[in-house]
Amino acid sequence: MASSGKNPIDSWYFDGSSKFKIAKFDPAAKPCTTGSKAGDLARLAELSARIEALQDIFYAEHRRKLLVVLQGMDTAGKDGTVRTVFRALDPLGLRVKGFKVPTPLELAHDFLWRIHAEVPAAGEIVIFNRSHYEDVLVTRVHGDIDAAECKRRYAHINAFEQMLAETGTTIVKCFLHISKDEQRDRLQERIDDPQKHWKLGMADIEDRKLWDDYMAAYEDAINATATPHAPWHIIPANSKSHRSLMVAEILLAVMERLKPEYPAGNPAYSGLKIE
Amino acid sequence: MASSGKNPIDSWYFDGSSKFKIAKFDPAAKPCTTGSKAGDLARLAELSARIEALQDIFYAEHRRKLLVVLQGMDTAGKDGTVRTVFRALDPLGLRVKGFKVPTPLELAHDFLWRIHAEVPAAGEIVIFNRSHYEDVLVTRVHGDIDAAECKRRYAHINAFEQMLAETGTTIVKCFLHISKDEQRDRLQERIDDPQKHWKLGMADIEDRKLWDDYMAAYEDAINATATPHAPWHIIPANSKSHRSLMVAEILLAVMERLKPEYPAGNPAYSGLKIE
Repeated sequence: MASSGKNPIDSWYFDGSSKFKIAKFDPAAKPCTTGSKAGDLARLAELSARIEALQDIFYAEHRRKLLVVLQGMDTAGKDGTVRTVFRALDPLGLRVKGFKVPTPLELAHDFLWRIHAEVPAAGEIVIFNRSHYEDVLVTRVHGDIDAAECKRRYAHINAFEQMLAETGTTIVKCFLHISKDEQRDRLQERIDDPQKHWKLGMADIEDRKLWDDYMAAYEDAINATATPHAPWHIIPANSKSHRSLMVAEILLAVMERLKPEYPAGNPAYSGLKIE
Repeated sequence: MASSGKNPIDSWYFDGSSKFKIAKFDPAAKPCTTGSKAGDLARLAELSARIEALQDIFYAEHRRKLLVVLQGMDTAGKDGTVRTVFRALDPLGLRVKGFKVPTPLELAHDFLWRIHAEVPAAGEIVIFNRSHYEDVLVTRVHGDIDAAECKRRYAHINAFEQMLAETGTTIVKCFLHISKDEQRDRLQERIDDPQKHWKLGMADIEDRKLWDDYMAAYEDAINATATPHAPWHIIPANSKSHRSLMVAEILLAVMERLKPEYPAGNPAYSGLKIE
């Protein structure tokens, strides 16, 4: 994604060269839309097929690694993005890792310990459904860490991501951005349907009261950790179909830039006849 | 899968109540076919949709666990089964774990150590692409373990699988059964196309010379470890489309038997209005 301004994705992309101001980004925007929902879904299907073909080669190549980080408020559509965008991929080379409230064992280690254990291996695509960013968002909003500790963590994150990038990992960080009104509707929908209660915790409802603090924490975290080797993409996510389409556009662009190739043939097999 | 004899899958199913004789099973058979390849693919798509719907509930239920073990000779279609059958599932609740030649760290532990670390958690479906069965197949054929050790391992496997079953794991073991001729054609195809060399190792070609030993080892292992709580399914796998169809039929039957249910609604949410 060169910041040429030609691609509609570009103005929603932060690599540290410009400042991210969350208020300027409309969660209801549709920068990638074809003009209709049906058109967007058709385009998503088309992108899926191309992503799938590239993933086959990426897996065979067994050299580079791809890490997609999904962040967003409760109900922002992280699970839905996995379901609609990443289902297209071959499960053989795909892993989804959800990070929940840390366990006592995880808390007994530094905050990157459980993260490092789950980064992609060669040929693998890994999706983080929440991530190490929770440790500069929820902890900060709840006052578990102060501003100085938060700043230290930004530095740890940047060093960690730089190491991953320099050792062959492409990092794609997506902030699924919904409005407070949209979240109200989605939470209410979960409450009104007992079959959806399992997706809900009282903490989600409590956290909503801290909405503005979360937005400020996201703005800070994105500005502090948007780098050329681990950029952030802002995904307007009030529309589910458009959100998935935009993530797929980004994923395809990244994979096309990587230009995966099949490993060279093995000369030892040349002319071999199996009996 | 009751062994009622009504379902075509049943006579390819072993739970220890009858003896498995590998020579009696034709790798070119198509017990589940609709009569045509197009029909089989259409049926597979239909099954996929039903499996997908049940998986959503299985994941939400977050109670039981499902483990699918894929075993078979090189080129038998383990990767292809993952690609064609399990791609239908939501990656959020699916994990594919391939077991390769053990690392020094893995070899420094008992043979079930690396396996136990990867079994499914509540709500999860895990596919083992190769498994602990390698440790009673390849090791035995190559003479790394003797008959007495092999027998001890069968007992360890049975105890381990029983523990998994009693703690909520449904275990589905599939032997993808191809003929020696079919393997020749598939290996030759990989050799003739340099883009497919990455799938091939000289060891695969060497192992082919031990075909009869492998068949005997499979027959023994299946007879020793087919139990009601962890049965084996023999999947005739010369036809790729029929192989996938049969695995999907088995998977759907298992999931229908499990009758997953959404967790009960939380009364605490009743009447709640989000502001």
